[in-house]
Amino acid sequence: MPSQYTVGVDEVAIDDDFWSPWIDRNRDVTVEYQYEQLKESGTLENFRRAIDGESGGFQGMWFQDTDAYKWIEAASYELAKADDPDLRERVDEVIDLVAGAQEVSGYLDTYFQLVEPEHKWTNLNIMHELYCAGHLIEAAVAHHEATGEESLLDVAVDFADHVDEVFGDEIDGVPGHEGIELALVRLYRVTGEERYLDLARYFVDLRGHDDRLAWELDHSEEIGGASWDDGALVPAEGGGSLLLDEDGEYVGTYAQAQAPVREQEAVEGHSVRAMYLYAGVADLVAERGDAELRAALDRLWANMTDKRTYVTGGIGSAHRHEGFTEDYDLPNESAYAETCAAVGSVFWNQRLFELEPDPAYADLIERTLYNGFLAGVGMDGEEFFYVNPLASDGDHHRSGWFTCACCPPNAARLFASLGQYVYSTTGGELYVTQYVGSDLSTTVEGTAVELDQESALPWDGEVAIEVDADGAVPVNLRIPEWADEATVTVDGDEVSHDGSGFVRVEREWNGQWVELTFEMQSELVAAHPAVEADAGRVAVRRGPLVYCAEAVDNERPLHDYALDDDATLRTAGEADALDGATVLEADATVSDRDGWDGELYRPVEDTEREETDLELVPYYAWDNRDPGAMAVWHRRA
Amino acid sequence: MPSQYTVGVDEVAIDDDFWSPWIDRNRDVTVEYQYEQLKESGTLENFRRAIDGESGGFQGMWFQDTDAYKWIEAASYELAKADDPDLRERVDEVIDLVAGAQEVSGYLDTYFQLVEPEHKWTNLNIMHELYCAGHLIEAAVAHHEATGEESLLDVAVDFADHVDEVFGDEIDGVPGHEGIELALVRLYRVTGEERYLDLARYFVDLRGHDDRLAWELDHSEEIGGASWDDGALVPAEGGGSLLLDEDGEYVGTYAQAQAPVREQEAVEGHSVRAMYLYAGVADLVAERGDAELRAALDRLWANMTDKRTYVTGGIGSAHRHEGFTEDYDLPNESAYAETCAAVGSVFWNQRLFELEPDPAYADLIERTLYNGFLAGVGMDGEEFFYVNPLASDGDHHRSGWFTCACCPPNAARLFASLGQYVYSTTGGELYVTQYVGSDLSTTVEGTAVELDQESALPWDGEVAIEVDADGAVPVNLRIPEWADEATVTVDGDEVSHDGSGFVRVEREWNGQWVELTFEMQSELVAAHPAVEADAGRVAVRRGPLVYCAEAVDNERPLHDYALDDDATLRTAGEADALDGATVLEADATVSDRDGWDGELYRPVEDTEREETDLELVPYYAWDNRDPGAMAVWHRRA
Repeated sequence: MPSQYTVGVDEVAIDDDFWSPWIDRNRDVTVEYQYEQLKESGTLENFRRAIDGESGGFQGMWFQDTDAYKWIEAASYELAKADDPDLRERVDEVIDLVAGAQEVSGYLDTYFQLVEPEHKWTNLNIMHELYCAGHLIEAAVAHHEATGEESLLDVAVDFADHVDEVFGDEIDGVPGHEGIELALVRLYRVTGEERYLDLARYFVDLRGHDDRLAWELDHSEEIGGASWDDGALVPAEGGGSLLLDEDGEYVGTYAQAQAPVREQEAVEGHSVRAMYLYAGVADLVAERGDAELRAALDRLWANMTDKRTYVTGGIGSAHRHEGFTEDYDLPNESAYAETCAAVGSVFWNQRLFELEPDPAYADLIERTLYNGFLAGVGMDGEEFFYVNPLASDGDHHRSGWFTCACCPPNAARLFASLGQYVYSTTGGELYVTQYVGSDLSTTVEGTAVELDQESALPWDGEVAIEVDADGAVPVNLRIPEWADEATVTVDGDEVSHDGSGFVRVEREWNGQWVELTFEMQSELVAAHPAVEADAGRVAVRRGPLVYCAEAVDNERPLHDYALDDDATLRTAGEADALDGATVLEADATVSDRDGWDGELYRPVEDTEREETDLELVPYYAWDNRDPGAMAVWHRRA
Repeated sequence: MPSQYTVGVDEVAIDDDFWSPWIDRNRDVTVEYQYEQLKESGTLENFRRAIDGESGGFQGMWFQDTDAYKWIEAASYELAKADDPDLRERVDEVIDLVAGAQEVSGYLDTYFQLVEPEHKWTNLNIMHELYCAGHLIEAAVAHHEATGEESLLDVAVDFADHVDEVFGDEIDGVPGHEGIELALVRLYRVTGEERYLDLARYFVDLRGHDDRLAWELDHSEEIGGASWDDGALVPAEGGGSLLLDEDGEYVGTYAQAQAPVREQEAVEGHSVRAMYLYAGVADLVAERGDAELRAALDRLWANMTDKRTYVTGGIGSAHRHEGFTEDYDLPNESAYAETCAAVGSVFWNQRLFELEPDPAYADLIERTLYNGFLAGVGMDGEEFFYVNPLASDGDHHRSGWFTCACCPPNAARLFASLGQYVYSTTGGELYVTQYVGSDLSTTVEGTAVELDQESALPWDGEVAIEVDADGAVPVNLRIPEWADEATVTVDGDEVSHDGSGFVRVEREWNGQWVELTFEMQSELVAAHPAVEADAGRVAVRRGPLVYCAEAVDNERPLHDYALDDDATLRTAGEADALDGATVLEADATVSDRDGWDGELYRPVEDTEREETDLELVPYYAWDNRDPGAMAVWHRRA
């Protein structure tokens, strides 16, 4: 089994009208650019200086090493799908630098090696050595799986062994930024070494129990990177205050340490960290089983999806701590909804699906991929949103790279490995979880299976899948939550189903065509009445896509448009400027502006509305043309 | 003629069911407390130290002297209305300190005298010496008019003469914070000294022309109070940045110096400063006539009232610079709407009325007094809002006094002198501009007039006024803009009128009763379609009052209520907890919460609404009971 999910990157070849251009741009533009950034930002130079035994001169963020690791991971996924000697050579060069910089003990973190060698493992809240280790391990496993080589895996193993020696013995503590937990499970899966699973479980179980994170705040003179006022070491605006409540007391929520994981009731704090943690917990449950942890994941998932998720699948309501706030607090213009958090949500949900093939997980992944995630990437593959608001006054735009460059490389590794999310073979059955044109070649319980999927999503609900197998294999086909009606046929014979969830077809497969037709209607949706930001508002969805209005398409200020509950929503052609995206048009009204001269307030009976259309484009496509205002939620007339 | 308006504080005795309790609390509680603050805050001690020739040890804000001046002004208005030996004695004590601290040259500013004697008149942007001089002069004139004494007037004259010597000669410059302009006109009116009028005109005309304010920013090492980082000397968050644009270039808008006043098109910058300036300009126009300045005032007033004023009469949309932003930018929860700016708006509008008795000025004063101003003062007379938002999530509450204590003393001087705003004798006619129970004793063109007004406002539109005069005097009675219908009778005989503006009755008066009945309907109003914050929203008004909903009276979160355009609005009794205020009840709907379990977004057709009532209280009365959310603008169904 592959290290992450039941289907590996190398088993799926995506060839899809919608997704292939994104994946190609990712490979040709983003991953290339990412490599140039490793040179320009000093990331590689940090490793070189460590190799040369230099002191000081560290460049970039204190967790800059992860840029190299994330690039290796993304590049490795590309190598897994198709060999590329040039890329392989560059990967090997970077690996040589990484390996060379590792200390004899196994320790590897160029910030501490160059700047504060005396302060290793002293500031777990902020200084992210374990987070760096996690990305190193993920890169190493991906590289090993892609190439069969052990050059980076050996580095990861040595570092993991070193962490295993230090933690639980010299030091008891957990990372402020999670990520190592899921990485250790991946490492266990390729090495078979149970100690890594034990270590992952140690980090999961200790969180919320130990007071190490609080202790550090009281001992700033003894810990690394403790000059809170030094811009380079303050993780986000507010610095240490993110970790403290109004009375200056430590609270664990920022790093999901408010309670032991198995007792947690709600998703809290920094949303990327939360997603990485819960993904790791799902991995642990998969390996070890743990009803209590499993129940905690169910509670946390229900809290997130019922009360703390944007209609785009985005998560994280506040900039201040880049994270979750309170139930139903989902402001639109000030939403955080970090691109990395959407990626993390996909990680977590795919793992939950592998644990238990509930279609709700796949539905959320679909919603997130097409909206909350994809909006983070410009249609040129060169510009990115870190933050994905659901409304903008026109001042929010993508930029080329970020000082803290977490989102672009995270998008890169997701695009490069997207095939893993299209299928699953969990429980010995084949699941088609996403409708993305692709060839799958895998085995299910030892039986070889080949699928050839063609999909018209997200524009039309037509899917055709040719299935070939060496024996009888149950194939499960998801009816998306957005499909009002669904028809499933096998070689023209209709398959009966109850209209939701998975349609299971178990039979011998010899090139039969499964054809699926999902009725795709544009619809107006409302948010739960407790969501203040969306009160009296509606959003437009069509199939898996959330739509938005942009100023460039609409004459009046966006706040002036109102939609009746029974407003007609029409498809209105394909936008060339948006790579042929289907755009929509909605019956709407705007204010009659007559009689307002010299008046700022008038009795309502003197105000009229007039009919017009509201033009809508897919949310993921916004801010790819003339800059301007944007709104996902429109006034409900 | 009195120094401010055509009717003096001593000519009006207010006896009104609504206003008298506020005025009494102001005299008995606020003015008393204000005096205690002069001692506790070190304000008086600053003067003592200056008298003793001490150095350093200055306490409070750098313009702390104005606390003493504002208190003297408010106390003087009380003395003008009724003698009070204890109060008079305390006023004299404070005046002795002020006078004693004045330098031989006439200069008086205890901050500079104690802290930076070498830096006088070097930082006109921020250090407010001329603003302090303005308040000193206002206090001195008020004290002289109340008592006939010259003890403080002499101090003001000496300081004004000193300013006159320094400015236009040694220094060319204008104050960053206006106030001295209107004060100099008051001083001219009691002394007859034309130089003060010339000096006021100098300050008005130079504004927007000179680059002194910009020069200071480039010479921070040479100017007083220039340690921008020292909290005591930074005027507001952002410090010097308030004066600079994004490129670090000086822009004059913060202090209304973006253009010469006679060329200005829109009200800009710090809203209190703007009101004080334009009040002074109106005074200048009254004295000197100046068609260009008059036209500028018309433009600025139209810009403010058509595009930059809250429905409460409040002004100032942004906290950052405590001021105006852009046309139609009127956010509710983040409104600034400073209490002092409402006071300043009343100052300006009353002066405009004296220039030209347009009822629109009186209407705006009424709207502002009952709403944007009055909300600033707690019903205990001890707590104050500096900032008056039109929506709150429940975290905005009045506090007892402020570090920068401008609002409570400003409220104090307005309450203490409220009679001036009830009547006017401009142009040789008598105007009843506000309906506030009161006795007026004045002369109109030499003819003695006595009025006895009884008013049921703001709860009912019934007013009765007994008029006595030594001859034929035209009496003008305002029909408020909110009155749908109005009936005016004199001794029972109906007076014909066109339903708006002033009803003019010219006749001999021998105790006739003028009776006015204004139809007072609750009404829903909408804002101009360009106001994004109020799009799809309605506010409730009844007579001069704006109403709001408070969480304490309503079960659901306020965002859940929606009002139909034809919703019935009912009076619903008098609230004992709000001193008998008439409260309202509106037909409303809220979300049907059935079926939302486990769902965050649903098709609109699955959502229902159910009928309920929305309880409303006068806006001025909010936050006087259990703390909670508040909203002036409600969702329009």
